[in-house]
Amino acid sequence: MSQRKAILVIGAGDATGGAIARRFAREGYIACVTRRNADKLAPLVQRIEAEGGIAHAFGSDARKEEEMTSLVQRIEADIAPIEVAVFNIGANVRFDVLDTTARVYFKVWEMACFAGFLMGRETARVMVPRGRGSIFFTGATASLRGRAGFSAFAGAKHGLRALAQSMAKELGPQGIHVAHPIIDGAIDTAFIRENFPERYALKDRDGILNPEHIADAYWMLHQQPRDAWTHELDLRPWIEAW
Amino acid sequence: MSQRKAILVIGAGDATGGAIARRFAREGYIACVTRRNADKLAPLVQRIEAEGGIAHAFGSDARKEEEMTSLVQRIEADIAPIEVAVFNIGANVRFDVLDTTARVYFKVWEMACFAGFLMGRETARVMVPRGRGSIFFTGATASLRGRAGFSAFAGAKHGLRALAQSMAKELGPQGIHVAHPIIDGAIDTAFIRENFPERYALKDRDGILNPEHIADAYWMLHQQPRDAWTHELDLRPWIEAW
Amino acid sequence: MSQRKAILVIGAGDATGGAIARRFAREGYIACVTRRNADKLAPLVQRIEAEGGIAHAFGSDARKEEEMTSLVQRIEADIAPIEVAVFNIGANVRFDVLDTTARVYFKVWEMACFAGFLMGRETARVMVPRGRGSIFFTGATASLRGRAGFSAFAGAKHGLRALAQSMAKELGPQGIHVAHPIIDGAIDTAFIRENFPERYALKDRDGILNPEHIADAYWMLHQQPRDAWTHELDLRPWIEAW
Amino acid sequence: MSQRKAILVIGAGDATGGAIARRFAREGYIACVTRRNADKLAPLVQRIEAEGGIAHAFGSDARKEEEMTSLVQRIEADIAPIEVAVFNIGANVRFDVLDTTARVYFKVWEMACFAGFLMGRETARVMVPRGRGSIFFTGATASLRGRAGFSAFAGAKHGLRALAQSMAKELGPQGIHVAHPIIDGAIDTAFIRENFPERYALKDRDGILNPEHIADAYWMLHQQPRDAWTHELDLRPWIEAW
Repeated sequence: MSQRKAILVIGAGDATGGAIARRFAREGYIACVTRRNADKLAPLVQRIEAEGGIAHAFGSDARKEEEMTSLVQRIEADIAPIEVAVFNIGANVRFDVLDTTARVYFKVWEMACFAGFLMGRETARVMVPRGRGSIFFTGATASLRGRAGFSAFAGAKHGLRALAQSMAKELGPQGIHVAHPIIDGAIDTAFIRENFPERYALKDRDGILNPEHIADAYWMLHQQPRDAWTHELDLRPWIEAW
Repeated sequence: MSQRKAILVIGAGDATGGAIARRFAREGYIACVTRRNADKLAPLVQRIEAEGGIAHAFGSDARKEEEMTSLVQRIEADIAPIEVAVFNIGANVRFDVLDTTARVYFKVWEMACFAGFLMGRETARVMVPRGRGSIFFTGATASLRGRAGFSAFAGAKHGLRALAQSMAKELGPQGIHVAHPIIDGAIDTAFIRENFPERYALKDRDGILNPEHIADAYWMLHQQPRDAWTHELDLRPWIEAW
Repeated sequence: MSQRKAILVIGAGDATGGAIARRFAREGYIACVTRRNADKLAPLVQRIEAEGGIAHAFGSDARKEEEMTSLVQRIEADIAPIEVAVFNIGANVRFDVLDTTARVYFKVWEMACFAGFLMGRETARVMVPRGRGSIFFTGATASLRGRAGFSAFAGAKHGLRALAQSMAKELGPQGIHVAHPIIDGAIDTAFIRENFPERYALKDRDGILNPEHIADAYWMLHQQPRDAWTHELDLRPWIEAW
Repeated sequence: MSQRKAILVIGAGDATGGAIARRFAREGYIACVTRRNADKLAPLVQRIEAEGGIAHAFGSDARKEEEMTSLVQRIEADIAPIEVAVFNIGANVRFDVLDTTARVYFKVWEMACFAGFLMGRETARVMVPRGRGSIFFTGATASLRGRAGFSAFAGAKHGLRALAQSMAKELGPQGIHVAHPIIDGAIDTAFIRENFPERYALKDRDGILNPEHIADAYWMLHQQPRDAWTHELDLRPWIEAW
């Protein structure tokens, strides 16, 4: 174990989380990436290694306090100090409120908000004594306002934003940079390609977000000197209506 | 069972919920009031009756889906159609984020947000077929922005606001008036009197909110004709800093 | 001159301003109504008088400091103390930003924001020594966010909202109730009837705002006791998309 | 005249405007810097040249339409296409609303908002046919909410934000990147050093904003690929209360 530093990406199963892990790995950070099933992370780990980086995949249920706690402790003990933590779990479902089951409402919150609290608190606990570190929570348009069909998703994303704001105000003066980038638009993913082909066709005109460019924004945030920190920024394709 | 209509107040254990129940009871609504322990509602029921109204107290755990469902069904079947539903459960706790247990974070959300979803959905289910009804969720300053020490509370209140907005956009065109009054200031309660005596002393200068006046605002909202509905308003003592 | 009180409505030429003046006149306030050309106010004055009220029409250019000052002084000296002041001048124009002349940009601001400042300051000057009074500024959706084609109008309405907020924070503790109702939707006016007949047809379904109901909200705001003041509320037809 | 590109900085008289001009000049942009009195820009021009860059100083009253128009035309004709335009005029004054003269209210708006409209429109006119370019407006905390004592300043900054939003929505799909960075905190300037020495002492702890770091954020915004544009971000020292 050297003086290297680790980035923890909770929810690295999608294009955005993977691109962030790769971006920081290229800068020398050891990428600790998680999703429910670690096996599915093998391609990401291989890609990071092929790019000359170091990556560790963890199968971890981010909604379980004990799993989050042991994950953070294990990385700190065996790999490297966590310098950056990124919470990137989405749970974008659409249901009319009358058709939203209590189970769905709870699960969406548990994945997209509660797990964020667990990651935020556990990584802050190791960062605060060091007086440094970045904690980033990925936001969405639903973080800013409710919308028909999005009671559950907007609720979870609003809660995550409140967490990010509260932590920023509380931990900023302790040296921890807490930020909440808001991704407003379709991202270049297999999901969009398969389910929204018309939208995906906008890719030729830069009409959907390139995950590599989202990752660049996260890297920029982490590089900001502490006299000029950003808490919130939006990222949106030029042709996106808003 | 006559043509009378019912108001359901979830969380009638505090001064605000009680005042709202009494206000609507004075207007002829049958007040169905709940808190965890029905026995503690006896004074409220007596007061409503002394003022010439009708009240029913229910011991009900608002976080339990089956209890909420059966509560609504029981009122609809045995008492009167629910014309107004008010969600008034608070859970204002203060903890540094590092000292916030997963249990506290979850409980605050379960009480102040999840129970609101259950009430909102269950009462909407009986109102939508009638094409009428009011559903009000009580908000707070923490509904609008996060704050040091309030990760859990602000998270729950943000989620409740997202619920109210989503429901308003979805159910407004179906005839349901969903509103989110934001109470910004100390309320004239035993809690404030005992714990914040200096603040309470402002009462002489109208410096803390009178629950009766909060109740007037809820009544006003319910009376609004459907061409001019309010979704959000703030209520604040004149001398409150903001 | 008795103990009666006056309401000053700047911009009483449209349906909303007229309805507000009539509402307060029915409650016993002397309605002092203004627009650029006083002659056009004759029907409003006649209607108020027919309803048993008292009204005075003033031709006054609200953008001219000296006219605003003398208007307020004249009402205070000759008619009655101004207890309520309502700023209701709109200037809803639509231009692409490249087609917005400097003249238009300035005029829109001068009418919809600068005149509001003049009214707010001049009426506050007579109210503050009395420690009481209401000052209301009519807002719109453009008060909350910019929009393609609305650089000028949104700019003026944003400025007016900043004025209302600043004045509320500054003058609230001096006993002045400053509020900013936001009208979000088409209003039942000749303009909508003639220019947007499809929209106007929604009237049969309560799909456009009745000015009388807007006026009710202004009256309600003025009646609020000072321990429970509202600074901002929205008014919107039930079927309005938002 | 080569293939070089120009940056126009309106309001380059302060530390922030100067740092932005220097940052872009180091990247090869020809810095066209303005303030009322061009003579005072000599030190900035010399510094840019000492750093190997090219700079042109213009004495120009940004509130005068004809001066803004001729300035933009002159740069386009004689120097280089304007690729980036930055509006950086502040007008941070504090007056109780009752003590705010009409002259002050107007002047603050004219400088901090109207001049921004003129710059935005004039530079958009030359950028839109090219389908590219960046237009940035510097915001402040007063852009987001009103505050006691800041009727005039908050009004102007709110108007500028509405302009930035409206232009972004309108011109984004035409290839123009419009952004509104919000500077929330004291900046390392002579003004702060001389007038707020206690605040300035925070510099040793990175407690005030370094203009060079603000400039880095503007450069980053300009570098963003068009599939991932940011419209708004905040910049704030780590220890700043908010």
